[in-house]
Amino acid sequence: MIKVGIVGYGNLGRGVCLAVDKASDFECVGVFTRREPSSVKPVTGFPVYSVNDLGKFKGKIDVLILCGGSATDLPATTANYIKDFNTVDSFDTHAKIPEYFAKLDKIATENGTLGLISVGWDPGIFSLVRLLFGSVLPDGKDYTFWGKGVSQGHSDAIRRIAGVKNAIQYTVPKEDALEKVRSGLNPELSVREKHARECFVVAEENADKARIEKEIKEMPNYFADYDTTVHFISEEELKREHAKLAHGGVVIRSGKTTEENSELLQLSLKLDSNPEFTGSVLTAYARAIARLAKKGETGVKTVFDIPLKYLYPLDPDEAFKSLL
Amino acid sequence: MIKVGIVGYGNLGRGVCLAVDKASDFECVGVFTRREPSSVKPVTGFPVYSVNDLGKFKGKIDVLILCGGSATDLPATTANYIKDFNTVDSFDTHAKIPEYFAKLDKIATENGTLGLISVGWDPGIFSLVRLLFGSVLPDGKDYTFWGKGVSQGHSDAIRRIAGVKNAIQYTVPKEDALEKVRSGLNPELSVREKHARECFVVAEENADKARIEKEIKEMPNYFADYDTTVHFISEEELKREHAKLAHGGVVIRSGKTTEENSELLQLSLKLDSNPEFTGSVLTAYARAIARLAKKGETGVKTVFDIPLKYLYPLDPDEAFKSLL
Repeated sequence: MIKVGIVGYGNLGRGVCLAVDKASDFECVGVFTRREPSSVKPVTGFPVYSVNDLGKFKGKIDVLILCGGSATDLPATTANYIKDFNTVDSFDTHAKIPEYFAKLDKIATENGTLGLISVGWDPGIFSLVRLLFGSVLPDGKDYTFWGKGVSQGHSDAIRRIAGVKNAIQYTVPKEDALEKVRSGLNPELSVREKHARECFVVAEENADKARIEKEIKEMPNYFADYDTTVHFISEEELKREHAKLAHGGVVIRSGKTTEENSELLQLSLKLDSNPEFTGSVLTAYARAIARLAKKGETGVKTVFDIPLKYLYPLDPDEAFKSLL
Repeated sequence: MIKVGIVGYGNLGRGVCLAVDKASDFECVGVFTRREPSSVKPVTGFPVYSVNDLGKFKGKIDVLILCGGSATDLPATTANYIKDFNTVDSFDTHAKIPEYFAKLDKIATENGTLGLISVGWDPGIFSLVRLLFGSVLPDGKDYTFWGKGVSQGHSDAIRRIAGVKNAIQYTVPKEDALEKVRSGLNPELSVREKHARECFVVAEENADKARIEKEIKEMPNYFADYDTTVHFISEEELKREHAKLAHGGVVIRSGKTTEENSELLQLSLKLDSNPEFTGSVLTAYARAIARLAKKGETGVKTVFDIPLKYLYPLDPDEAFKSLL
């Protein structure tokens, strides 16, 4: 049995709990929270402890799954956890991955622990597939489309506008761009041509909706470069129609093996629940990290380093007999 | 530079030559053939030697890519090559993989060589994806559909019928089955419900076409369990319309993370040239084997054992900085 600790119980932590509960080779030692432990009730009934008590569990946990956010939580806390534990996280600030890796790798190597960073579906499965597709079809070009799905960062950006009570933002891939890519044309696509942004906004009473809409549409980086649609709806409608954290996306690579012959490779995900699926991916990789740590591996790894057999719930060295 | 030898120059050997020629980190030492070497003219201009002279190249080749067939070539010859060379092959007789693996693993381990078996897209990329999908979405079911594409085995089976001069058989996935699977229904599908078989047959003059059609449609294992269509065409039409070895397929996994939430994962390939793409996959994995052999690894591996970073044409330990 793999003894796992789950740090954080938000949407992702809940997803990890559900995945761990389904995996018969895992045993959950506890969910660790910054909140008052008695206030946290995991859907799976796992025991809950204060994150401040984690030190007491050193040597009793094979792998910690870190379910904090990438903006502030993980950069502030992973370095501390990895001193004493093997860790798996979903750090997804692409530009800062090299720096995050270097810092943690040093600590893990010094302390004889093993960490896996940036696991999930992007970064994670999509990254793996971009590497695989690019290597087996080098003379080509790849495209990643996200959605239709909720972007937490963009939803937050809208919520910070004065007069906005609540908001959900969907990233929507554009069908004509997808079609062009799938036809093998390898088009140059601008940001605006790839994705549209659709916003559902609950305004405060008497707020100036025209001003809010303008502020959204002109917000640099987040919206100004996109075709953005804004719908004002009631809080009830938001809760009723936009509560599911669905997401998805596709990686497409189109290329040539010779002048005459084109090859098209695609990986797509369609997810009812982004956090539940991401939790399931983190859990599978936590299995790999627990196994590799037992073999004596240390330092920090990414998905590119992990032979896929270690994700297999049964004997990894037998996987080829049934799955190849 | 990775020094590669290519054994066999049929459709697949030609595909490997093209891929090696495109890869700037490879140098082709030679194409090795059972035919009279002067009769073989690789499209890439690589030197050609008799396969009987391969022994002279021991120590001068980092990895041999074996392009023989799975029915007789590879089972008869790989054991001999792997004594002296690191090898990569596309052995695809799924049921015999464990036996093939065990035999070669013993020889490779004894001789300090490294082999990778059963690489291509199925077995190969599709196998990797079935393992990955199954591990990250354990509560689900996966489906593999092949085609539309030429099945060499089925084409050969038709050609063995008396009165048949030539034939090409396409395996065609059924749209309604694909749709059911993609809708997340996880249907039970019979062989007949998943794929149809479409045959283009050139009959000998005065041959009894009705008898040929009946023999095809009633052939056990190959056709009897399928909806099979037979078209009689001229040799000219066959050469003109059915010369391209297009193929493709899709792996779909549909499953649940909770009762309410379903997740759908898909990988699809659409290939103008099956042998050129397969050759490109073999070449990328030959890079991995050359690198791992240099690190001292021995024995036989499958795609499940190989961290994907080793396929990356540039520094594998830097891949995460740009691709994660």
